[in-house]
This record gives sequence, structure tokens and C-alpha cells, in this order.
Amino acid sequence: RANPAGDKDVIINPDIDKDSDKVASMMTVKAGDKCVVCRCWRSGTFPLCDGSHVAHNKATGDNVGPAIVSVEK
Amino acid sequence: RANPAGDKDVIINPDIDKDSDKVASMMTVKAGDKCVVCRCWRSGTFPLCDGSHVAHNKATGDNVGPAIVSVEK
Ligand code: FES
Ligand code: FES
Repeated sequence: RANPAGDKDVIINPDIDKDSDKVASMMTVKAGDKCVVCRCWRSGTFPLCDGSHVAHNKATGDNVGPAIVSVEK
Repeated sequence: RANPAGDKDVIINPDIDKDSDKVASMMTVKAGDKCVVCRCWRSGTFPLCDGSHVAHNKATGDNVGPAIVSVEK
């Protein structure tokens, strides 16, 4: 494995909507467009990715990145 | 805050594709359908959510959940 595995039992969301017991996000995408979904919980434009996963990966040795969702033709 | 914040400097992906330096996922959604994107890095059907965020939240006190992406009308 090129990158460290890390501990399974950690809180992965440091500070997004901690008053909510489950942060589920409803998002939409247009035909011909893409929706770039943040999966690092560190984006300034959450639930959209703003590239913050890069600094997170560098700081921790993690290997996370976004999901890019497009409309099936 | 109802839920604990946790430490910013932790690895959030315990074991998905650790040979890759950045796990970005290309996904598609059909008009009239939904794409449920895992953001907990613990799904057995990653990059799709299989509900594993529930056990993760219970075990750790976290509050994560999926992004549900649909096609804009
Ligand atoms: S900013 Fe979170 S995945 Fe890109
Ligand atoms: S299984 Fe990961 S968010 Fe649901």
C-alpha cells in the first residue's frame, strides 16, 4: 500500500453542521455539466469540492478526493 | 453543538484504494434517478452509499451521511 491506512474509529467530519445528527446533502446536476462532490469534509464550499482535499492529504498522508457526477447520456 | 467535532488531522479513508494517491470517482446519474454518493469511506459498495455511515456514526459519535445527486429538471 502506497498510503497509510489509518484508524477506522475516528470522527471524519471535524466541523460541518455538527448540530445535525446526520449530514445528508441534496444536490443536482444539469445535463452536460458535472457535480464535484466533496468527500473530505473540509471544503469551504461543502457539499461541493473546493480542492481542500489536497491540503488534507498532504498534512495527513490520506488519499481522498471528490466524486465527479455527470448525467448519463 | 450536538455532536463532537473531532480532530482535523486524521486519515479519513481507512482502506479504499490506498495504492492510489488520490481517490477520485467518476459517477453518472440518469434523469429521474438518484446517485447516492458515500462520503464516509466505509461503504461496501463504494463509491455508492450502502448505509455503513450509520454504524460509523454510532461507533464514533460522528454525523456523516451521503450526498444524494439528482438531475436538474
Ligand atoms: S474539498 Fe473535499 S473532496 Fe475536494
Ligand atoms: S455508506 Fe458511506 S455515506 Fe453512506
